[in-house]
Amino acid sequence: MKRVLLSAVVLAGMAVLAQNQTASKKAADGKGEAQMKLPPNYREWVYVSSGFDMSYVPGLANMGHSMFDNVFVNPEAYKKFLETGTWPDKTVFVLEARMAQNKGSINKKGSYQGEVMAREVHMKDEARFPGKWAFFGFGDGDTGTLIPTSADCYSCHSAHGAVDTTFVQFYPTLIGVAKQKGTLSAGYVKETQGK
Amino acid sequence: MKRVLLSAVVLAGMAVLAQNQTASKKAADGKGEAQMKLPPNYREWVYVSSGFDMSYVPGLANMGHSMFDNVFVNPEAYKKFLETGTWPDKTVFVLEARMAQNKGSINKKGSYQGEVMAREVHMKDEARFPGKWAFFGFGDGDTGTLIPTSADCYSCHSAHGAVDTTFVQFYPTLIGVAKQKGTLSAGYVKETQGK
Repeated sequence: MKRVLLSAVVLAGMAVLAQNQTASKKAADGKGEAQMKLPPNYREWVYVSSGFDMSYVPGLANMGHSMFDNVFVNPEAYKKFLETGTWPDKTVFVLEARMAQNKGSINKKGSYQGEVMAREVHMKDEARFPGKWAFFGFGDGDTGTLIPTSADCYSCHSAHGAVDTTFVQFYPTLIGVAKQKGTLSAGYVKETQGK
Repeated sequence: MKRVLLSAVVLAGMAVLAQNQTASKKAADGKGEAQMKLPPNYREWVYVSSGFDMSYVPGLANMGHSMFDNVFVNPEAYKKFLETGTWPDKTVFVLEARMAQNKGSINKKGSYQGEVMAREVHMKDEARFPGKWAFFGFGDGDTGTLIPTSADCYSCHSAHGAVDTTFVQFYPTLIGVAKQKGTLSAGYVKETQGK
């Protein structure tokens, strides 16, 4: 299970250790619970993209398996993004990591998706979180724990996210909207200049 | 473009040549148009899964690039499937093939999704199609052409699809529903016996 969690955490650019921390019932900011329930119907939300064996860390050791990560966002936030090029308050993303399978049925090559390995939520609540956004780690269960703001996921998303600390550069139907609406972050614009 | 079309066709188990045929305005069955428009909002439909470089043909030559295929289904059909374990009349699937990218932004390993390479529709219309279901090929445009029933996609889906000629065995949130509801096809049950 530990290896499985590690994979998902690396995927999202989160700190490895954060997932293993024991959380108190109350969040450090005192404004809300440090735990949350997984949105039960997130698979009916809007799909924004999948990655395959993605990592933001060079030279990471091979995990001995491949995995997919699927990203979903609540439909209200998606509609607002199409209109404005950015995310409204109460946006909720669910990242779902699934084990890649390759031997099954008539498949002869490549990979299809198997069991859930871990899930993470990235949500925006301007009144509740000091940086407006927060991450919750779930493992493969349905109760998530708030990840402290000292974890790498916060600084990485903040520095490199194309729009409002989110990795819209990896969501092929949305990056064009952000370019058109002029909502790309200064950091992302600088990183991609001349490329 | 030809290579791009080939990739998507192989993915869906469809006949390679069918995509290149010139269609008349009327379908061979005389009951409807041989062309259809891509459902404009299919990216807001329910996502059922993605594959990565999948092929049903062994020993296929390397295409020089990797690709994802994302599958979406209309929400009404998805809800009915959860209730019944099978697909109602007027079910529409969209298969979207996208080029895999690996060098971009902060990604160091693995693949994320780039441009659309091709799309295909698999739809059920019991009154219109002799075998209840039909395939339409789109390339990367939004007008699709009916694929003749002599194409391999029909026989392959019919022989190997886990539920009602569809590859539910590759949709991880749905295969369990079909097992529970007892709607697996006889062919699939036979293929997977003892595995």
